[in-house]
Amino acid sequence: MRTSIATVSLSGSLTEKLTAASRAGFDGIEIFENDLLASPLTPEEIRARCADLGLTIDLYQPMRDIEAVPADAFARNLRRARHKFELMCRLGADTVLVCSSVHPLAVDDDALAAYHLRQLADLAQEFGIRVAYEALAWGRHVNTYTHAWRIVEAADHPALGTCLDSFHILSRGSEPKSLEGIADIPGEKIFFLQLADAPLLAMDVLQWSRHYRCFPGQGGFDVAGLVRHVLRTGYDGPLSLEVFNDVFRQADAGPTAVDAHRSLLVLQETVGVATPPAPVVPTGVAFAELVTPDAEPVAAVLGALGFARTARHRTKPVDLWQQGEARILVNTSGAARRDGTGLAAIGLESPAPAAAARRAEALLAPVLPRRRATEDAPLDAVAAPDGTELFFCATDQPELPNWRADFTDTGNQAAKGVRRIDHLALTQPWHHYDEATLFHRSVLGLQAQESVDVADPYGLMRSRAVTNPDGSVRIALSVGAAPTDDTVHAQHIALATDDVVAAARRYREAGGRLLPIPANYYEDLAARYEFADGELATYQELGILYDRDAHGEFRHCYTMTVGRVFFELVQREGYRGYGAPNAPVRLAAQHSARAVIGG
Amino acid sequence: MRTSIATVSLSGSLTEKLTAASRAGFDGIEIFENDLLASPLTPEEIRARCADLGLTIDLYQPMRDIEAVPADAFARNLRRARHKFELMCRLGADTVLVCSSVHPLAVDDDALAAYHLRQLADLAQEFGIRVAYEALAWGRHVNTYTHAWRIVEAADHPALGTCLDSFHILSRGSEPKSLEGIADIPGEKIFFLQLADAPLLAMDVLQWSRHYRCFPGQGGFDVAGLVRHVLRTGYDGPLSLEVFNDVFRQADAGPTAVDAHRSLLVLQETVGVATPPAPVVPTGVAFAELVTPDAEPVAAVLGALGFARTARHRTKPVDLWQQGEARILVNTSGAARRDGTGLAAIGLESPAPAAAARRAEALLAPVLPRRRATEDAPLDAVAAPDGTELFFCATDQPELPNWRADFTDTGNQAAKGVRRIDHLALTQPWHHYDEATLFHRSVLGLQAQESVDVADPYGLMRSRAVTNPDGSVRIALSVGAAPTDDTVHAQHIALATDDVVAAARRYREAGGRLLPIPANYYEDLAARYEFADGELATYQELGILYDRDAHGEFRHCYTMTVGRVFFELVQREGYRGYGAPNAPVRLAAQHSARAVIGG
Repeated sequence: MRTSIATVSLSGSLTEKLTAASRAGFDGIEIFENDLLASPLTPEEIRARCADLGLTIDLYQPMRDIEAVPADAFARNLRRARHKFELMCRLGADTVLVCSSVHPLAVDDDALAAYHLRQLADLAQEFGIRVAYEALAWGRHVNTYTHAWRIVEAADHPALGTCLDSFHILSRGSEPKSLEGIADIPGEKIFFLQLADAPLLAMDVLQWSRHYRCFPGQGGFDVAGLVRHVLRTGYDGPLSLEVFNDVFRQADAGPTAVDAHRSLLVLQETVGVATPPAPVVPTGVAFAELVTPDAEPVAAVLGALGFARTARHRTKPVDLWQQGEARILVNTSGAARRDGTGLAAIGLESPAPAAAARRAEALLAPVLPRRRATEDAPLDAVAAPDGTELFFCATDQPELPNWRADFTDTGNQAAKGVRRIDHLALTQPWHHYDEATLFHRSVLGLQAQESVDVADPYGLMRSRAVTNPDGSVRIALSVGAAPTDDTVHAQHIALATDDVVAAARRYREAGGRLLPIPANYYEDLAARYEFADGELATYQELGILYDRDAHGEFRHCYTMTVGRVFFELVQREGYRGYGAPNAPVRLAAQHSARAVIGG
Repeated sequence: MRTSIATVSLSGSLTEKLTAASRAGFDGIEIFENDLLASPLTPEEIRARCADLGLTIDLYQPMRDIEAVPADAFARNLRRARHKFELMCRLGADTVLVCSSVHPLAVDDDALAAYHLRQLADLAQEFGIRVAYEALAWGRHVNTYTHAWRIVEAADHPALGTCLDSFHILSRGSEPKSLEGIADIPGEKIFFLQLADAPLLAMDVLQWSRHYRCFPGQGGFDVAGLVRHVLRTGYDGPLSLEVFNDVFRQADAGPTAVDAHRSLLVLQETVGVATPPAPVVPTGVAFAELVTPDAEPVAAVLGALGFARTARHRTKPVDLWQQGEARILVNTSGAARRDGTGLAAIGLESPAPAAAARRAEALLAPVLPRRRATEDAPLDAVAAPDGTELFFCATDQPELPNWRADFTDTGNQAAKGVRRIDHLALTQPWHHYDEATLFHRSVLGLQAQESVDVADPYGLMRSRAVTNPDGSVRIALSVGAAPTDDTVHAQHIALATDDVVAAARRYREAGGRLLPIPANYYEDLAARYEFADGELATYQELGILYDRDAHGEFRHCYTMTVGRVFFELVQREGYRGYGAPNAPVRLAAQHSARAVIGG
């Protein structure tokens, strides 16, 4: 189906918005009046710019409070409409949106509303324009799509139809049968379909609509269910996004438009009108790759953790450190010293790497060059929204290209305390938290857990995990409260062990420094739970944190931070979370430790 | 009365919070449990630190879901309480807060709740501790202060009282008679009073409470009304702020604590238990002062606007530019070149400058040095939260020190188009918008108008005006959507004229550059209003914007920006606003103009 996006959904000048929409693959746009008024381009120039960019102008939104108003107000509205219809002819836009009146003097009179809309449609018809009438959820008298349709039906004019908007319909409640009325509308009388999702917030619907909408799949509405109803009517117009969101208003238009278009591609797959390559869910973590300007501090931490440098890349300055099934690549090529040490890439075990990459590409993930040297295994890779490179790997699978084959064994032996990577934590750019979740769900086929708020001493963070079904791939995505948040919210690699006490002791005895946790924390643990004699003292000595959920227990501790990365040792016994209740204590300890080092 | 603040209201580590609270003048603090758990200080060290800082620990908040729970859960609660009471003895805190249970297994049984609270109070009494029981607005069974009091009354234990919290009471509705029940509580049984205000949002009360609270006077609750009721009972404990706010969590603790303490000083004045010097409302704008590293570009704009350099300071590199009653000082001392040209100070006409400064000082405004040179008039001045210097002036008042006396006339004559400064627009630091409003209201005695959202192409701004009764002082305070917002959101000086067309023409003919406004804007004006022949063409030629409200008309245009400042020419005829509907067009034009200059 054709895809469209309202200019209000993207930030910047009108030309920036048009360029971003076109580059992201949209077929058309809705022009929001303020974007036109503020543009130095004439309507003819906008039309030409859109044509150059391969965009149609699918809708124009210039008018409010048209119908069921006093006669003098309606006369002014018709006068204004004539101006706007002339403008639309210059733009080459043939559909105008009319939202149900919120005018304080509007009357509750469907016959008058129909009469006014018929007059407006008469005028529109002279200009070859169609009027799409939509019920705002907070319309003064008309606030349901069924009511708007009754008025359109009564007006009975070929240039008058209805516009359905998922926000206005679904924000009023999600009873499945509330959508059944859509079947009563002939598809050709649905002139337009606007789509937006939203988080399920209990708040004033106008505020909710104006500030918190998001793209389909990012919120809590069943947008796909609504679209299925609409498609059954025979509607064949565009799927158009109209999203008012305070964060998107600030974000770069380019990535937001890609995010937006991906949401429509996924939506079309969900409702069965598009068939991108199926998701290939990763089955494990092949490796995590650190990029560093200086391998020494990272090597010291990994060595103390019991990792051994078991192999090195045949042609590049990349070492493979391994312990159990946990593999960490340390790459010293190309890292800028000022960026320090960072988590740059994740290798995901994939049953079908090439197919995984094809899906990612179909869902607009930037595909990275496949080969890095002639003799290297052809690794398929894409970039996540935060810039992390995701490699689709098949470790030691004879029939598939094997990334391990690029490495030459050193013969070094690792310790045995760490079994595998438990989870990876990535910090997301401020404006792209919802995007990151949708990306990992749709592109990788992972499942998203609940988003949780975490109190850092200097602001609230949000964090949400995406996982595969057996928990062998767990990625925690987190975002600070504001773009100024500093790098203490670092990426980290959590390593699974069966005995965190032994692993922590070994690390410390090998010279590693663990993050110290305040004594007050352990006194609170003593107040909350009963522990065996000496158990808490051991935890306190090592800085081990403890949590419990309905499924089991969690013990974990942290190394000091190297560059922008730290490591966590975790002993997970049935427990399903990530120790979120302990995160405020951990974050405060990291701020405190950093203050000491920095000071 | 004694003042206190919960550590959760301030950002940073516990020691940062304590220091900020002490410096701002608080007498005590409430310690939020997470702040203690995350602190490396022992309870004894915290106690000593507080004593050094002159702070008492008025409340500790360690326990939730205490009462009306199953017997095994209550047994665990008592065990935990013993730990916490021991801790409180080490801290030297004698009052513990217990919020009404939200436990899913809590039962609706007041007798059981009273029995549990009595047992808790028995234990507390052994430690010399008092239990303050508070109804959370979302408590499972107990969610009103009257209900909490009934249970406390039934428990009838000397170590058990109630805690009243303005958020939990006022968020449930503001019927005046809903507060009448307070009179039934003996003052000595009100063990604590927690205060928070909040904007009037229609949203889930838990989210509202956790993220959007603010200090008294910054929101929409009648906190003073509630406090009056409480004081009538004979309550003599502290007024304590407990404010959960996402923005305050990120802001520097120092200014936030000052803001917080100011809110309690104003509250005490409102309820009549404190009498700071009365406000002295300014009666006009004496001058606006620009600081610039290079006077030439500013002088060119002022000259083209018809200002003349009518006087210069006797001892400092400060010129006075004047036209009508509009006076602009151009100060070239001390401005760093990288900061460019900025609006650094405002002279406010005051009927009693010294008294105005005394009030400002009493309300914690930083007082600036009174004299800048021996022979200068002793100007009283304070700093606003955004750093703008506010001078309290008496222009040409024989009995008061006259700042004009420091200037020597040049004899130059100004044009006559501009009559006075219509308003001044100041950009506020991101975290201090509510603070700025409270400051201008309480310190200067100005009235705050509604806050409006303004769509900039790169994010939403908020803007709110503060004015004196006759509108001769109008200051627009605005804040961007995020701390990264750039300087296009500049400060500006709006100049009142009776004929904006003539003033704009004169400016342009004198070589001034006006901000160009897109043609599309004028086509929309033509669609919305009827104008005389040629009127719109004139506006378009000059970039004059138009708005209308119920009181009259507004025509205005803008100069290009110099450094961080631009000028506006306004013709205000009865109109009460600031042209907010035109702001998106103006902001887009400024971005666009800047792009051209920059590119």
